[in-house]
Amino acid sequence: MDGLRSVMAAPPVTRRDVLAARKTIAGRVHRTPTLTSALLERQLGVPVYLKAELFQRTGSFKPRGVLNKLASLSAEEKARGVIGISAGNHAQALAYGAALAGVDALIVMWQGASEQKLEATRNYGATVDLQASDSGGAFERLHELLAETGRTLVHPFDDPLVIAGQGTVGLEVAEDAPEADVLVVPVGGGGLISGVVSAVDRRVVAVEPETSAALHEALAAGKPVDVSPESIADGLNAPFAGENAVAICQGRVESVLVSEGEIEAGFRFLYGRAKLACEPAGAAGVAALLAGKVPLKGAKAVAVVVSGGNVAAETAAAILAGR
Amino acid sequence: MDGLRSVMAAPPVTRRDVLAARKTIAGRVHRTPTLTSALLERQLGVPVYLKAELFQRTGSFKPRGVLNKLASLSAEEKARGVIGISAGNHAQALAYGAALAGVDALIVMWQGASEQKLEATRNYGATVDLQASDSGGAFERLHELLAETGRTLVHPFDDPLVIAGQGTVGLEVAEDAPEADVLVVPVGGGGLISGVVSAVDRRVVAVEPETSAALHEALAAGKPVDVSPESIADGLNAPFAGENAVAICQGRVESVLVSEGEIEAGFRFLYGRAKLACEPAGAAGVAALLAGKVPLKGAKAVAVVVSGGNVAAETAAAILAGR
Repeated sequence: MDGLRSVMAAPPVTRRDVLAARKTIAGRVHRTPTLTSALLERQLGVPVYLKAELFQRTGSFKPRGVLNKLASLSAEEKARGVIGISAGNHAQALAYGAALAGVDALIVMWQGASEQKLEATRNYGATVDLQASDSGGAFERLHELLAETGRTLVHPFDDPLVIAGQGTVGLEVAEDAPEADVLVVPVGGGGLISGVVSAVDRRVVAVEPETSAALHEALAAGKPVDVSPESIADGLNAPFAGENAVAICQGRVESVLVSEGEIEAGFRFLYGRAKLACEPAGAAGVAALLAGKVPLKGAKAVAVVVSGGNVAAETAAAILAGR
Repeated sequence: MDGLRSVMAAPPVTRRDVLAARKTIAGRVHRTPTLTSALLERQLGVPVYLKAELFQRTGSFKPRGVLNKLASLSAEEKARGVIGISAGNHAQALAYGAALAGVDALIVMWQGASEQKLEATRNYGATVDLQASDSGGAFERLHELLAETGRTLVHPFDDPLVIAGQGTVGLEVAEDAPEADVLVVPVGGGGLISGVVSAVDRRVVAVEPETSAALHEALAAGKPVDVSPESIADGLNAPFAGENAVAICQGRVESVLVSEGEIEAGFRFLYGRAKLACEPAGAAGVAALLAGKVPLKGAKAVAVVVSGGNVAAETAAAILAGR
């Protein structure tokens, strides 16, 4: 019976949830443009669409999920505030969303987090906890603070409401590039791709760095496994994939890995040819396409999410100079 | 009578010409997105729109004017081919437009032109003449070749049909940012701003580098004057402003100059905050806004053209690293 229940279980997120999320967050996120690349089309032989989520508020797709989650909180939960863990895009999105919702936000980071990201998060009005010395310690610190403060956790990727919010990216791509029958998505903890898979009925390709492949490993193992991510695509460096992500993506996505050099080449292509000042994580999907790693036989068109643009100027300069 | 005729003369380009140009080039240029910047809005106190012409085909607004001009050629003129002079964006646009129109293109450049721009121009199928040793020599070479070959000149900025084509940028901004009552435009030889001024009835601000101010000097002198431009915004380094530009812009635009440092700061802002991988020329308008050089008292909103994105990776890296 347990096995049967598991097989028959409703997925944790459905298209209906994503449609509801779109209504919930309407007006507070940008409808980012879907651009075309004639050059990629020539190289790949099919039209290529770039969903430019780097233009989203706070510089990545992350506010979509955050705002959907925050909208679900009761007045009492709002009064107690929220807590999150992130050294990157989720931190900024949560700080931004909480400020919009008038909710106090506490973000757990760790020593060594970039000054720039700390500053951006604080500028949106959040409090940052920097007690932990590394990311492992930060998760322990998060659990302490959760217990101490009674704040509501806004998970960076594995909350069904967060996933449903991220899925609105998929709805927009399907509308703006209706002929794109292949969607290519950079993957860290799996929130964005889980939302996209839930939103649309098309081929979905998960792209992860070889050195940061939490979802790839989890799909192979059939459950989340701990990894030690270490990619230049820091936005994808999740230490594990979400349980919901694994449940949603199992059997429904194709998994592709890209090397660090391929990510850098994708980054340079997006800057130099598509004129998109993305972050390395945001270039992972294009990297996979340029490397010929996404099978396109029979495809009518392909859409790829350029998921974010928050990169330190020095990092961008080094990648651009390093061809 | 001459004076009277001059005062009463019809302007060389009218809104009607720009509307006609839009029909002529429809379907062969992108309708580029008009993005907002919440950060600039906070800094300036009014909504700010960024017209992202760096996403235009060939990486700048230039194909608009080129395609409008090429469409006016007779079959005989087309058979004789076209000729242009440029070491940058106009070269790529003319090569691209001529290839689309099935017209042979010869582009006069000069020794020292960047390999990247040479290659891009040749890749679109144009022939490049590299006999001249500098830009002055290139103009002499152009006149020789015009006489020898009977090709039609597609001027980079001072042809009324080119100006009308560039003006379609203004129509789109007016539609996509209707409340923007101030338009800020980077200026080289004056083609784009002349088109914009002809297209819309709003305040228009011309932004030029202090070290490359052909239109500024021309408006002061009442006629084009030779300058020796030397800005990091190489896309604005015109050796003189067009006669038509002076006729159109005199008394109708406000002129603002920006320093090289301000252009670099604008460039870094666009990369880091707006996520736009522009070229230095494309950042000049934003530079003027960030420097507080555009008077915004009483303005409802401001739109600024980010005119192009063709920059060598090494140049971009150096500016990004050089804060």
